[in-house]
Amino acid sequence: MERTGRMETITYDCIREAAARLKGAAHRTPVMTSRTLNKQSGREIYLKCEQFQRGGAFKFRGAYNTISRMTEEEKQRGVLAYSSGNHAQGVALAARLSGVPAVICIPTDAPPVKLAATRETYGAEVLTFDRLTTDREAFGRQVAEERGLTIVPPFDHPHIIAGAGTVALELLEEVPDLDAVITPIGGGGLLSGTSIAAHGWNPKIRVFGAEPKLAADTYRSLQEGKRVSIDPPSTVADGLRATTPGVLTFPILQSHVENVVLVTEEEIEDAIRFALLRLKTVIEPSAAVALAAVRKGALPRDCRKVGVILSGGNIDPSLLAQLWEREATKI
Amino acid sequence: MERTGRMETITYDCIREAAARLKGAAHRTPVMTSRTLNKQSGREIYLKCEQFQRGGAFKFRGAYNTISRMTEEEKQRGVLAYSSGNHAQGVALAARLSGVPAVICIPTDAPPVKLAATRETYGAEVLTFDRLTTDREAFGRQVAEERGLTIVPPFDHPHIIAGAGTVALELLEEVPDLDAVITPIGGGGLLSGTSIAAHGWNPKIRVFGAEPKLAADTYRSLQEGKRVSIDPPSTVADGLRATTPGVLTFPILQSHVENVVLVTEEEIEDAIRFALLRLKTVIEPSAAVALAAVRKGALPRDCRKVGVILSGGNIDPSLLAQLWEREATKI
Repeated sequence: MERTGRMETITYDCIREAAARLKGAAHRTPVMTSRTLNKQSGREIYLKCEQFQRGGAFKFRGAYNTISRMTEEEKQRGVLAYSSGNHAQGVALAARLSGVPAVICIPTDAPPVKLAATRETYGAEVLTFDRLTTDREAFGRQVAEERGLTIVPPFDHPHIIAGAGTVALELLEEVPDLDAVITPIGGGGLLSGTSIAAHGWNPKIRVFGAEPKLAADTYRSLQEGKRVSIDPPSTVADGLRATTPGVLTFPILQSHVENVVLVTEEEIEDAIRFALLRLKTVIEPSAAVALAAVRKGALPRDCRKVGVILSGGNIDPSLLAQLWEREATKI
Repeated sequence: MERTGRMETITYDCIREAAARLKGAAHRTPVMTSRTLNKQSGREIYLKCEQFQRGGAFKFRGAYNTISRMTEEEKQRGVLAYSSGNHAQGVALAARLSGVPAVICIPTDAPPVKLAATRETYGAEVLTFDRLTTDREAFGRQVAEERGLTIVPPFDHPHIIAGAGTVALELLEEVPDLDAVITPIGGGGLLSGTSIAAHGWNPKIRVFGAEPKLAADTYRSLQEGKRVSIDPPSTVADGLRATTPGVLTFPILQSHVENVVLVTEEEIEDAIRFALLRLKTVIEPSAAVALAAVRKGALPRDCRKVGVILSGGNIDPSLLAQLWEREATKI
């Protein structure tokens, strides 16, 4: 009776309901195509551009969906997130738009730009903690308990997954006959939502994930048939440094995902350069992982029309500069 | 009887005809908006994104329009352009798509990337010349004469101007009630076409140009009421280094343009950074000149809805890297 234990099953309807809740709040982001990319890959590639989403990444969708489902009392007390990345910005922005106070826990040594953006641009209260001496989850839970805040988790939550699934739903509304769809994998929230959306739309759509070779926790977990933990990975794709798939997301990935493509750090950097020089758009390393997987020709040949979810565009400016210095002319 | 001397008057109909010729060949580029930009500027800003045009800049439009109007005999003989920039790529690409041979004259010391792109990506024949000992126009004219090629000039030609005007026409079809429109000024082809399109659409639309302070030939010419020549300018906006407005374009600008906004090199670089970090898109310095003009609040207060033509996205990768190094966190 394994299924009985689950609090909630995430269905196609959950994603459609999330889409309705996001209407007017989230951007309906554009789908980009490129003749160069189609020619190089020998396929029709449709890039769903979440770098143009509010907050610069798809994370806003799940955060807003989750907050919209809180009770009035919960909303008055506020939300808490622990992250220095896109999830923190997504929660802070979604909370501000919903009139909900937000507390974001950020390590003391996070880039000052991110700290300032979370505080000033998105108006959240920022609590810093020493990453070396403090466990961020324990720290966050303690603050949330003391102040009665609702924790908005980064991926392993039904409303977060449903919100993330709206990206694929929009893509399919625009390109209804995709053969396949691919997304990057961090904790698996985006790919879980994408899987449910895609197979709700058409069970024949083939679903793929992309991971850095240096952060192959989901790849290994799917191979071994159980959640495997890896050491904290050093990949440039800072959004994909989760060390193990989620409790909720993993079984979803197990039943929907055909394969996980692994890409090297060099392939990730090349994909960022390709996006800048050819597509004229800025994508972050995590988003580049999915683009790199398609560029290296890793999908089965009969996937002719492929949707790629570019998850965000919040790249560290100094990384952008380094990428060019290293090999300015190579694409 | 000054008007009698003009070969051809460029009308709104010329632009609509160019738009019909470009259909299916040129991209209908997206119009981008940004809450941050609207908030900072206190206006509604509509960015027409020619960085996503074929060849990475609006130049393809004029080149394709011009080639499409050549006779079959002229097409068989081919075309010639002298440029190392967007115009060369626009002509090479338009020629290839039209099945017309193209010769591009490029200085020997042009960046190897540009040379290779023109030759390999766009399939043109590249002739190099020593920029220090050879006048490029004379060199180009001689080759064209010897081989019976039609020269496609960069801006001072009715079909080039009409092609450039289709950008504003598309923008107005999407945002019909603009109060004002602004474009960068090199030789004045884009702004001439934009002027005629805007005033053909609605004579009340206010038309502005933007120039680097270091390349203020059109600004000065409009002030003095005659075409003024400046020394070769050193602005980072390599597409706007013309030393004087065109013979054809200048009178058009005189009768349509309300004002030219001058921007500093720092303002241009800041606008590129803003586009990368906030808009997640790559624009070249020439395009950034128009964005910089709007960001510095130089337009009259009652211009509420403003169209900005981002002319292209072909930025030199090493320049992109330098911009970050110089001041990575400032936007």
